[in-house]
Amino acid sequence: MAAVADRLTQVAAHLLPQPPHPHDPLSGAEIRKAVEIVRSAHPGLFFNAVTLWEPRKAAMQAWLAAPNTAPRPHRVADVVAIGRGSKVYDGVVDLTTGEIVSWELTEGVQPLITMEDLQIVESVVRRDPKVIEQCGIIGISPEDMHKVYCDPWTIGFDDRFGSNVRLQQALMYYRPHVDDSQYTYPLDFCPIYNADTQEIIHIDVPPVRRPLNKAPPNNYHAAAIEAEGGFRTDLKPIHITQPEGVSFSVEGRVVKWVNWKVHVGFNYREGLVLSNITFNDKGEERPVFWRLSLAEMVVPYGNPEHPHQRKHAFDLGEYGGGYMTNSLSLGCDCKGAIHYMDADFVNRAGEPQTIKNAICIHEEDSGILFKHTDFRDETVTVTRGRKLIISHIFTAANYEYCVYWILHLDGTVQLEIKLTGILNTYAMNPGEDTKGWGTEVYPGVNAHNHQHLFCLRVDPQIDGPSNSVFQVDAVPSAAPVGSPENYYGNAFFAQKTRLETAGASACQYDGNTSRSWDIANEAKINPYSKKPVSYKLVSRDVPPLLPKEGSLVWKRAGFARAAVHVTKYDDSQIHPAGRHVPQTSGEPSMGLPAWIAANPAANIANEDIVLWHTFGLTHFPAPEDFPVMPAEPMTLLLRPRNFFTRNPCLDIKPSYSSSPSGAKATGVVDRESKLAFTDKGCGKC
Amino acid sequence: MAAVADRLTQVAAHLLPQPPHPHDPLSGAEIRKAVEIVRSAHPGLFFNAVTLWEPRKAAMQAWLAAPNTAPRPHRVADVVAIGRGSKVYDGVVDLTTGEIVSWELTEGVQPLITMEDLQIVESVVRRDPKVIEQCGIIGISPEDMHKVYCDPWTIGFDDRFGSNVRLQQALMYYRPHVDDSQYTYPLDFCPIYNADTQEIIHIDVPPVRRPLNKAPPNNYHAAAIEAEGGFRTDLKPIHITQPEGVSFSVEGRVVKWVNWKVHVGFNYREGLVLSNITFNDKGEERPVFWRLSLAEMVVPYGNPEHPHQRKHAFDLGEYGGGYMTNSLSLGCDCKGAIHYMDADFVNRAGEPQTIKNAICIHEEDSGILFKHTDFRDETVTVTRGRKLIISHIFTAANYEYCVYWILHLDGTVQLEIKLTGILNTYAMNPGEDTKGWGTEVYPGVNAHNHQHLFCLRVDPQIDGPSNSVFQVDAVPSAAPVGSPENYYGNAFFAQKTRLETAGASACQYDGNTSRSWDIANEAKINPYSKKPVSYKLVSRDVPPLLPKEGSLVWKRAGFARAAVHVTKYDDSQIHPAGRHVPQTSGEPSMGLPAWIAANPAANIANEDIVLWHTFGLTHFPAPEDFPVMPAEPMTLLLRPRNFFTRNPCLDIKPSYSSSPSGAKATGVVDRESKLAFTDKGCGKC
Repeated sequence: MAAVADRLTQVAAHLLPQPPHPHDPLSGAEIRKAVEIVRSAHPGLFFNAVTLWEPRKAAMQAWLAAPNTAPRPHRVADVVAIGRGSKVYDGVVDLTTGEIVSWELTEGVQPLITMEDLQIVESVVRRDPKVIEQCGIIGISPEDMHKVYCDPWTIGFDDRFGSNVRLQQALMYYRPHVDDSQYTYPLDFCPIYNADTQEIIHIDVPPVRRPLNKAPPNNYHAAAIEAEGGFRTDLKPIHITQPEGVSFSVEGRVVKWVNWKVHVGFNYREGLVLSNITFNDKGEERPVFWRLSLAEMVVPYGNPEHPHQRKHAFDLGEYGGGYMTNSLSLGCDCKGAIHYMDADFVNRAGEPQTIKNAICIHEEDSGILFKHTDFRDETVTVTRGRKLIISHIFTAANYEYCVYWILHLDGTVQLEIKLTGILNTYAMNPGEDTKGWGTEVYPGVNAHNHQHLFCLRVDPQIDGPSNSVFQVDAVPSAAPVGSPENYYGNAFFAQKTRLETAGASACQYDGNTSRSWDIANEAKINPYSKKPVSYKLVSRDVPPLLPKEGSLVWKRAGFARAAVHVTKYDDSQIHPAGRHVPQTSGEPSMGLPAWIAANPAANIANEDIVLWHTFGLTHFPAPEDFPVMPAEPMTLLLRPRNFFTRNPCLDIKPSYSSSPSGAKATGVVDRESKLAFTDKGCGKC
Repeated sequence: MAAVADRLTQVAAHLLPQPPHPHDPLSGAEIRKAVEIVRSAHPGLFFNAVTLWEPRKAAMQAWLAAPNTAPRPHRVADVVAIGRGSKVYDGVVDLTTGEIVSWELTEGVQPLITMEDLQIVESVVRRDPKVIEQCGIIGISPEDMHKVYCDPWTIGFDDRFGSNVRLQQALMYYRPHVDDSQYTYPLDFCPIYNADTQEIIHIDVPPVRRPLNKAPPNNYHAAAIEAEGGFRTDLKPIHITQPEGVSFSVEGRVVKWVNWKVHVGFNYREGLVLSNITFNDKGEERPVFWRLSLAEMVVPYGNPEHPHQRKHAFDLGEYGGGYMTNSLSLGCDCKGAIHYMDADFVNRAGEPQTIKNAICIHEEDSGILFKHTDFRDETVTVTRGRKLIISHIFTAANYEYCVYWILHLDGTVQLEIKLTGILNTYAMNPGEDTKGWGTEVYPGVNAHNHQHLFCLRVDPQIDGPSNSVFQVDAVPSAAPVGSPENYYGNAFFAQKTRLETAGASACQYDGNTSRSWDIANEAKINPYSKKPVSYKLVSRDVPPLLPKEGSLVWKRAGFARAAVHVTKYDDSQIHPAGRHVPQTSGEPSMGLPAWIAANPAANIANEDIVLWHTFGLTHFPAPEDFPVMPAEPMTLLLRPRNFFTRNPCLDIKPSYSSSPSGAKATGVVDRESKLAFTDKGCGKC
């Protein structure tokens, strides 16, 4: 009956017009309204971003605590618009009141490059005489200019051109046939594009020329594989079904699953934003994280030859993980029973645009959740795990990033990222020495060394807003072997160092101590362990930023200088490389370094804090990564430690459970599992 | 037709009596035969192990190269038997000829403790007057001795008792009710059991006594959960099915799947052994690994108080990962379409015993294999991955280790281990200080800090037997920012250091350089990258051994002193902590340190080599790990690098593929996937 009542409430909720949840992304209608309000005051602008200006945390928490009496946070739009002459306007528009709250001309910055900005460049380079000339030099005739392609990147920063003109660099490629992968045919020169005038203002030409690659195409599309002998037929289908439906519910954008509750937001920049994540601990809805997102990333390339130093894309801050999000397909990107959410963005002209199926929400079986067999009598309990996965995939020119936020039954939050797509490539001559800065992955194709460094923004709320961060190192006792305190030499412990101020919060990773970080609420002590309730950040793919101190990347990607930074919470601090990233010089370093420098003594112990975690991997390409890269996974965990008094998932039905006294339970009996070579189904259980 | 012919050949193969593959484990009949041969020459023995004495590599390779002309390796049994007075005999019995090849009385060693050895102890402690006395002291009356339990461990090493008498230490527990988890009621004393005389010879009693825990039971069996409110009903089933059958075939114990071929062995000690692993690269069956196994492990506990230094179980060498293997159940331990293999062992009396369903072989969907979308026109190829998982689970007293060997389509071999089961616990008094060596996970229950350090034995055969190992570090260029070689400061590269001799092969892990190891065949160069074909060991959970240099654990677990050791191949070197591990003193260190010390100058470059990799994790317990621990996963990868000239899985049918010219392919269309809240199936694809 409760289920029926729940369902009726849900149905009713869908029938009645509901005001959006304050954390919901702006709808198409809201985007349109924001644009109209701006237009009426400031005509003649192009729109770069119209996104939710998130409710201030204090106001939002007050409203959540007393939704009937506290003021409901207004719907507010955060607007970036561009006027003639690369003029950039940052505005805040209150959609509830219809008022422009603030409107500023921001000098010396360049907002991110949208997909529309990218699309224009290719047609410009194809007809530019200087580009046609360069193509001729390396062996492409003028009538083949339609076979010339480019991946337009922000210029990053190039001190010859500064930050006042909106620029892109065009990484040049060629397709002998329209279906060929252009990454097999990189061109050796790099035009610079002025987005204002829509013209090529310069071309970087290397001292040694590299004529167009003569190698045969290296393709992976269906026709190419068919021509090479076709697809395998020996992989039999695996079906994943939920005949009784899914185990999660969705109200608006609030997803409830087992003990978890989370608001699923999305914006043009970070892509997925998970807010107000709580875990129901035996009836008590305990806050865990206020907000989780991938806030920034940087992909520095390791070839020092000019102009490759400019290849260090901030894919979120310079292009937008939301803007570049794929529209997903059932059974292709995720299998099983899927719930999708769309994403609404503004286009350059101020119209709302929708990416269908931008977000995928689904469950997966996750193998054994826990098991124990008593060796005496073989009594056993075995329980299978389940995970809820909230994901999106974005395409950053050549690369694909598949982002999976995973909730586990045991209270763990996992972030998994799969890297796939295509290597960024550059031309090389036959016999040319890569000097170790890259790998010849195919004749004439040099794939440069690079890193993918992500910045995870963790706004914790471990049983409340006041949290502390401890660096935790697994270390041996200092006492020598033979001493009374450590006679046998086997003593080791978790050395915990509390981070006290933002200015002293930078921590490097240390694999040698299995370093991790506890985000703790020191005011709430686990009654058993007497330790503060906490979530531990367990992350093992944590390379340092390899570009050196003082390098351009080091200056621009300040967040990546440490594995962990902690700051006192500030509503305005979302983007660790700055609000507007393209063409920042790094002097001064924007975002995280600037915030910390502004108040290095800021207390971060028992405070409302934000933890910034840089993780990722260093990629030395190899031929097996080409012409398209098998997905490389990377993961990190946020695990409850001393948070619960007990394993919180003991009430998941076991697959099988027996006890010495003879009591048995068969729970989620899986009669669908079969023996591979007979039709025999589930045995014991 | 080819498929039909294959099937007929398979059927025929099953009908004809086939000689076992030389790598097959001994069958029950072979075990019986080995025992009979031994008995006829040496009556009155108990059997500790009768297992395959694996063919010598040279003989095996000769036979594989010319199966019709080279001699077929004999079936040979490796026998460990125990006579009266703890006399240990090591023997080799040729089953083909019926002869005992060697038979030796081995002095001063103790072979591993079998499940039967373990089972006896509990009944002995229950009736021992000294144990009954100690129970009385901490509050257990003599009539409750049937509620006293123990986990018998090998003694490890205790210099008071030496190595000549076969000993166990009994970690003591209590169950108020037969169904209660005894780990909530650890007892504070530790009897020492003599396996020869089957009596308690000593009891270690702590200076401060800890009476029996008075806390209520903390159980997870079905009746307990029902009594607390019952199991959740909101997790809907997920069905995983393969209506057209599985994609792998099994002939004898050789598994073929897509391009992979592997022989699946199993022994009492290592559990799973994968041999002669090859990858079919466009028709060429390329050898990758000769043999892969988990060869040893050690679980040192970090509490220095006597006698806890003895808690550092070598679960493989002291108990046997095969002997402790669970009998698996369909739908419980693995879901889908499963092929099981049984395992045959000898018992103490010399009879063959079978563990049904000891090994599970099954496929799983593994999400996106690769994907790329062209941002210009949204043409896309997305292909789903698949993995073949060969697994077993073993119960080491309180803990469970789930071992998954995973083959991927892209040529990657993954080893995943899930740790679950129950924490080893010790008694503590109310208010007692754990001193940081453990955590009170429940009132009166102290779970000590510990490490799980596994030793992976990699016998590589990267395109042939002669291989080299390179330590690979991701490092910045040495040239400073502003210098001509590194003007922009962004240069970084893979620094490769070849390991030259066994004596200088020990490598520590370095997270700061994302250290990995390439196992390379320097005689075979990738035609594109000009680098040797290789497999890279990527392992990120690599804590150092925390017990200090000179400690008992350090001496006994020499393999764990470094992340990587490399030795020249030797048929006899399988067990890195020695052939017989219980009661080794570590003086001298057995196994790996002894082998290396015997010939430190042994060349390991371009040689037949073995790489020994120690990995694992350090566990500081928390209440959420109790009373049964949610599975903690850990993984490592062996990835092809410069091994292929191209992504080797491009011929896997895409879920969806389109090209700019309009060519499309829908491959493995998954019409089973549905929208969660409607019945709409697969959309685009």
